[in-house]
Amino acid sequence: MPTLLRLDASIRTEGSRSRALADLVEAEWLAGHPGGTVRRRDLVADAIPADAWHLAVTAGWTPEEQRSDEQRAAVSLSARLVDEMAEADAILVAAPLYNFGPSLHVKTWMDTAIADPRLAPGAEPLLAGKPAVLATVRGGGYAEGTPRHGWDHSTPFLRRILGDVWGLDLAVVEEELTLAEVTPAMAGLLDLANAGRAAAEQVARDHGRELASALQRA
Amino acid sequence: MPTLLRLDASIRTEGSRSRALADLVEAEWLAGHPGGTVRRRDLVADAIPADAWHLAVTAGWTPEEQRSDEQRAAVSLSARLVDEMAEADAILVAAPLYNFGPSLHVKTWMDTAIADPRLAPGAEPLLAGKPAVLATVRGGGYAEGTPRHGWDHSTPFLRRILGDVWGLDLAVVEEELTLAEVTPAMAGLLDLANAGRAAAEQVARDHGRELASALQRA
Repeated sequence: MPTLLRLDASIRTEGSRSRALADLVEAEWLAGHPGGTVRRRDLVADAIPADAWHLAVTAGWTPEEQRSDEQRAAVSLSARLVDEMAEADAILVAAPLYNFGPSLHVKTWMDTAIADPRLAPGAEPLLAGKPAVLATVRGGGYAEGTPRHGWDHSTPFLRRILGDVWGLDLAVVEEELTLAEVTPAMAGLLDLANAGRAAAEQVARDHGRELASALQRA
Repeated sequence: MPTLLRLDASIRTEGSRSRALADLVEAEWLAGHPGGTVRRRDLVADAIPADAWHLAVTAGWTPEEQRSDEQRAAVSLSARLVDEMAEADAILVAAPLYNFGPSLHVKTWMDTAIADPRLAPGAEPLLAGKPAVLATVRGGGYAEGTPRHGWDHSTPFLRRILGDVWGLDLAVVEEELTLAEVTPAMAGLLDLANAGRAAAEQVARDHGRELASALQRA
């Protein structure tokens, strides 16, 4: 049975827009693969410890028999994160922009995975061409011509690792102004936010269908 | 006595270039302030827990008397991080580029600090104009015209938060090609790396002196 690996990084469980967009992608993927398996990793509820990455890296500098128990556990977690991606037929990452940068939980996941020798620079490509979707959301507006244009330092970085470094066949769905409905000062942006939401939901469904058919073609 | 707050994010203790540059900044600052206090926070050895930020954020959505012990501890850590910056006369951040993005330890520190209401958007500027130095290093080469140009997704983000968001009076010292001396494939870049190192060390000393005199003027 085909498997979709889904990773969530929103600190909200209720009202999370990145989770909502990912739900749409997932539903379309499942519609294309009735009975398919969705394997989930919630990067917030089941957070990767802050020290896993550097313990896994320093373990790589240490002869195996001299590694501490903490280093062994970190190496094993690092391998598990890569196994999850390697075993999946498709990957879905849902990650909001937080404080103008990448989610700390996503960076911690990426770093810890990259510590595995299979994702080291120069290793045989392990994930190249695997279909993937990134669902990302921004509370404010970052469009060209607005004061915050260029302040999203997350999406270009996530594209870099998922697309350029890991070589995933990546589609991205983005929604912004997600805080308009709960922020009085953004009331004037509500129509724009709602239009953007409807468009993003359509893109999410399209990407979900493509994710399912990309797998069928593989 | 004046205080310098120093934060380190290198996962190396020996051979760390970001720590070496920060040592030069610190030495010049101390030369300008004999007997001054250097308050240190090692963001790797004494890592901020992965869940501190979202616990502090969700605590902000929860009436004080209903907060869990974990939420209270996170709020208190968040406040402590901001106190450290508010109380310092100057701030020094040493952070390498890791996997083309910001150090997870630095992002965790920033997010957890920003959870404090004093750093919330719209709050009275708390840190504006405080002198600061960022010492950052990159293992490879990212200069214009090289294949990795544009792949440093850390430095622009760190400048954004430290400079644009917090309003620190920020000077930046950067060194790259730091892996040339230990990477056989980079042997041809060793002369360039060494020249870059000497230049970066000079800039670090200059920024250290400016950091000390900026304080004297304040």
